[in-house]
Amino acid sequence: MVNAMESVNIGILGMGTVGSGVYELLATNGELIKTRSDVDLRVKKVADIDASKKKEYSIPDEVFSVDASDVVDNPDIDVVVELIGGTGIARELMLNALRNGKHVVSANKALLAKHGREIFKTALEQQVNLGYEASVGGGIPIIKTIREALVGNVIHRVMGILNGTSNFILTKMTREGLDFNSALKIAQELGFAETDPTLDISGGDAQHKIVILASLAFNTAIDIERVYVEGIEHIEKRDMQYADELGFVLKLLAHAERVDEGVLVKVHPSLVPRDNPLASINWEDNAVMVYSDFLGKSMYYGKGAGKRPTASAVVADIVDISQRICSGAQCDKALYSFTKDYPQLPFDTSRSRYYLRFFVFDRPGILSKISGILGKNEISIASVIQKETEEEHDYVPLVMMTHEAREAHVINAIGKIDKLPEVEGKSKIIRVINNE
Amino acid sequence: MVNAMESVNIGILGMGTVGSGVYELLATNGELIKTRSDVDLRVKKVADIDASKKKEYSIPDEVFSVDASDVVDNPDIDVVVELIGGTGIARELMLNALRNGKHVVSANKALLAKHGREIFKTALEQQVNLGYEASVGGGIPIIKTIREALVGNVIHRVMGILNGTSNFILTKMTREGLDFNSALKIAQELGFAETDPTLDISGGDAQHKIVILASLAFNTAIDIERVYVEGIEHIEKRDMQYADELGFVLKLLAHAERVDEGVLVKVHPSLVPRDNPLASINWEDNAVMVYSDFLGKSMYYGKGAGKRPTASAVVADIVDISQRICSGAQCDKALYSFTKDYPQLPFDTSRSRYYLRFFVFDRPGILSKISGILGKNEISIASVIQKETEEEHDYVPLVMMTHEAREAHVINAIGKIDKLPEVEGKSKIIRVINNE
Repeated sequence: MVNAMESVNIGILGMGTVGSGVYELLATNGELIKTRSDVDLRVKKVADIDASKKKEYSIPDEVFSVDASDVVDNPDIDVVVELIGGTGIARELMLNALRNGKHVVSANKALLAKHGREIFKTALEQQVNLGYEASVGGGIPIIKTIREALVGNVIHRVMGILNGTSNFILTKMTREGLDFNSALKIAQELGFAETDPTLDISGGDAQHKIVILASLAFNTAIDIERVYVEGIEHIEKRDMQYADELGFVLKLLAHAERVDEGVLVKVHPSLVPRDNPLASINWEDNAVMVYSDFLGKSMYYGKGAGKRPTASAVVADIVDISQRICSGAQCDKALYSFTKDYPQLPFDTSRSRYYLRFFVFDRPGILSKISGILGKNEISIASVIQKETEEEHDYVPLVMMTHEAREAHVINAIGKIDKLPEVEGKSKIIRVINNE
Repeated sequence: MVNAMESVNIGILGMGTVGSGVYELLATNGELIKTRSDVDLRVKKVADIDASKKKEYSIPDEVFSVDASDVVDNPDIDVVVELIGGTGIARELMLNALRNGKHVVSANKALLAKHGREIFKTALEQQVNLGYEASVGGGIPIIKTIREALVGNVIHRVMGILNGTSNFILTKMTREGLDFNSALKIAQELGFAETDPTLDISGGDAQHKIVILASLAFNTAIDIERVYVEGIEHIEKRDMQYADELGFVLKLLAHAERVDEGVLVKVHPSLVPRDNPLASINWEDNAVMVYSDFLGKSMYYGKGAGKRPTASAVVADIVDISQRICSGAQCDKALYSFTKDYPQLPFDTSRSRYYLRFFVFDRPGILSKISGILGKNEISIASVIQKETEEEHDYVPLVMMTHEAREAHVINAIGKIDKLPEVEGKSKIIRVINNE
């Protein structure tokens, strides 16, 4: 070592799962971090509204407080680590910390997805750094990769499995032939799904994350309200089985693409070819695939949630920022500016291949009627499978894979097909991913 | 932008595949990089011994030179990008550049694997930065990930598909049932293998790369001579087919593990369970899996070679270093020091499960003889498959999967088994990876 070690004072807001993970990581691997990064991270204050956390994590008296302002307004603290979550008090505290000139690290995806513009603007005005690696993909270094490793690349598309709960449920359904409700129940029993699982299974959590990734990848603000979201609640095991026969695996994918006309951001169940690396991302794991002009296709895989993986990402951000502080570097300001202003395109302009499943009464001419309606809507059929009649019904499942088509055309066609007297109930539409 | 843009002068040594890729990337995406990183990268000098490169890449007169010292000894140049390759002149030029106080970026895996200790030491003494992302995994940000994203993690193991040529050949053999020589020939015709493919197929290239990754992951110097290396030249399609029946895919894996007694670094063909994410890394693609204490298992996948992916990694290093220069930051010195001095363990201490394939004359008692020898060597059998007699021979293939065993014991046992009169030829040993 040539220079004296520099120390950086850390304040942690919130000693829940992630907060306690960060505290433990710094206690366990603090010496290693010192050796590797030449900075000495000191946890100066820890605030949690629940006073019992002090004893639970053996936090010294002078470090623990039940008052968040002991962190946010503390002149000794360099980096505030916001791990409270939610968009209420967390937002106020984060903005106060930034306005007090403190660097901030956060894992708060909902806050950044909904109030990113305000938060980034404040960080930029105050010339402080904001680390948010842990907000997307748990411990997977996807933010660092997009910001730094892909700095020389135009990014065309970001696509990933960003919600561990849904992926666990879908894996369980695929592997064990369970229906959605049984798989959800098991996920809840094992702690992979919350008592109220709505945010995870409805796609809302993945929506928050893809908004953050899309903003960063395309250097543009994304309006979360205009992101198409469809969850996995209505996935039937039947369709997973048919897809399997066709060589596909069903995953909840979040996508963001940049096309000539603007950006398109969407979350929905997708069929992934079995030999695509995303198809082998199972259980609660996450993965993000990035398509860019020089690197091409690359993928980043790991634990998308949990105490220790998320703590790993939070600490990486703390170290990055601390090294910048110690070296007297400017804040990474260009990275918080939305330098582009791309229009955000409606979902009905989206294009993909489609899996369509109909229940039809087995009468002559029905296949011709359906393919006629699809043809009129510029949808061409790649393959058709008529399944065996299901015993309890007098209609048969008819499965079609289309070539690439436009969402608006498919919705229109299916609306018409579902009105045919030979078609029973509501037909199923699942978008299909190509290996490219 | 609050501050004036700072400019950094770049000198490129070597306008081969990667050099010209870097030149093109900076020309194509230079403005984007400026916006994102707030640094203005200027290619001040480009040197190549081949004067025709000037015209080929439309390099201005005042920028091009056939003399490397116009880059290395040029007082105007801040960052020297070494893309000559090899361990001869490249080593001299790199050391000269470092001694001249220049920051260096390089894609030269052979040089770093063989002379890393000298090069890192020089960089440290001179307090300059050395970027080598492009030396391993092409455009995949594995160096950045280990150095920065995993800074808070103890790393236990790094394991990956690091050679695109071998992976292409193995994929071709797996998918099309070809033998090694036919697959190699196709790889050569398609440009995925060199005319002399030795370095790729014998595991030497993967050996260079795993030495670099192991040194970084474990903060210790690795002696390349003591790395066990076995290539794919002797892989038979028969064993790939048997492995497939057992649910495994054959890959050339490079491993580095940290155990209580030291570190173990090895490159050899391995059987990977089909549902392991590494099993779906096909063709010329690369992937690295990292096991660490907080993040757990994570994987990084992409193009492991090629002009544009490698240029992407080189440019990311240039930008990182340039941002450090502009902000007046210290060099990242702790990262070049080998702070640990772990013993490097011999391969025969390695432990794994094993795939063993014997040709046996189908006589009573042979199974008992073989399992007896294995048992005496502390190798327990997990499953046995006796295949049909091959038409042209009077012996039958016998395939065994073992539980975890020690390399020395397996080598000893196979030596004894191959001497049995009922066993034909040399039996096949392939190490097997667990999903953990």
